[in-house]
Amino acid sequence: MSHGKQFTLYSHAGGGPNGWKVAFVLEELGLAYHPIYLDLAKNEQKSPDHTRFNPNGRIPTLIDHHNGDYVLWESDAIILYLINKYDPAHKLSVTAETDKYDLIKWLFFQASGQGPYFGQAFHFLRNHPGEKLPTAIARYQREIVRVWGVLDGVLAQSPGGWLVAGRMTAADLAFFHWNDAMLALNVLEGHPDGEVDFEKQFPAVHAWHEKMKALPTAKKLVADREAAKAT
Amino acid sequence: MSHGKQFTLYSHAGGGPNGWKVAFVLEELGLAYHPIYLDLAKNEQKSPDHTRFNPNGRIPTLIDHHNGDYVLWESDAIILYLINKYDPAHKLSVTAETDKYDLIKWLFFQASGQGPYFGQAFHFLRNHPGEKLPTAIARYQREIVRVWGVLDGVLAQSPGGWLVAGRMTAADLAFFHWNDAMLALNVLEGHPDGEVDFEKQFPAVHAWHEKMKALPTAKKLVADREAAKAT
Repeated sequence: MSHGKQFTLYSHAGGGPNGWKVAFVLEELGLAYHPIYLDLAKNEQKSPDHTRFNPNGRIPTLIDHHNGDYVLWESDAIILYLINKYDPAHKLSVTAETDKYDLIKWLFFQASGQGPYFGQAFHFLRNHPGEKLPTAIARYQREIVRVWGVLDGVLAQSPGGWLVAGRMTAADLAFFHWNDAMLALNVLEGHPDGEVDFEKQFPAVHAWHEKMKALPTAKKLVADREAAKAT
Repeated sequence: MSHGKQFTLYSHAGGGPNGWKVAFVLEELGLAYHPIYLDLAKNEQKSPDHTRFNPNGRIPTLIDHHNGDYVLWESDAIILYLINKYDPAHKLSVTAETDKYDLIKWLFFQASGQGPYFGQAFHFLRNHPGEKLPTAIARYQREIVRVWGVLDGVLAQSPGGWLVAGRMTAADLAFFHWNDAMLALNVLEGHPDGEVDFEKQFPAVHAWHEKMKALPTAKKLVADREAAKAT
């Protein structure tokens, strides 16, 4: 690659959170990357230019040009790779063994419990072809509320209001962009059990989210996203 | 715990694959564990006896009595913990750095791309309350086929027909029980694009699945599951 940066990151310009999740970690660690924004509406993520790196045809995909052009996909696997290999000061990683597996546990909860179900809520509310399916929408809206409830219970009791080790780690960052997208896109609109007041019902999640939202890197990524959308 | 085994594993007796996935790794590594089967129909996984260990109220949950009763949940995080800590002979783990992250990538693909969507297919086909939603069923049946297609393409080109390092690792085992459940439960019944012939359409996945099915540990777990169901 001729861009001279350590990493190439295949991402997309739209609101889909998984690419921005990885970018958040890259930015926080001050790692240089060249983003390539794929147009999902044109199915560019399924084109051979991308699938030769990632047979799953989903973004993000990372290439590490300082490690023999090693290619990795699955956003949380990429996050783990970055913090284990390129975070010697432990800005986002942890040192105690049990903290390490607690961090990994939260990444898996993000990958299996937040991302897919939050994504299904959005799909059935906004994108499902044909008629609206209220019981499918309700299923996933309730799951968002359940997941926020789990996180709120944990964060309310955690030192500093962070998931692991009493300070911000990659585990926290991994949840940010999906939560942000669900709020921005109003995905809980018409929740079958009544209106959801994020701040009131999930005060610990709300406070956690706001702390990350205030980071300069989070603000930079909002600007990057707007710029990427515009092109 | 008075059972004297190194681990306690909260699992369930039914066909849900995530507990059996962890048991598969424990069995292959010859690690001694005491399984506690929760009755999901009675919501026992949401009872305080379990949620004091796992605030997410889902199974599996593992307690390691040789590591200060360390509690870990999220099945693939548990798998990673077990192979990193208790597999010094590298029966299921790998040694090269890029192989390690490839293995982690497949665990995340299992956690985010196989488990949730295969589970949704089963839900809408068999468990969704109210009327059947054909377009929701079709969405997830197509996703099963897509995931098998991704795996088939990769396995067909991989040395030995395994995901990582040319031999069976925990990455392979992690996929087994979900695939087995989807086949046993006939979750592709009435697929909107026509009947799916697993063996013919996904020969590399089929061969891979059969190799694992033939393992003595896989057979032992079938017997364990039948015994657990009966009690």
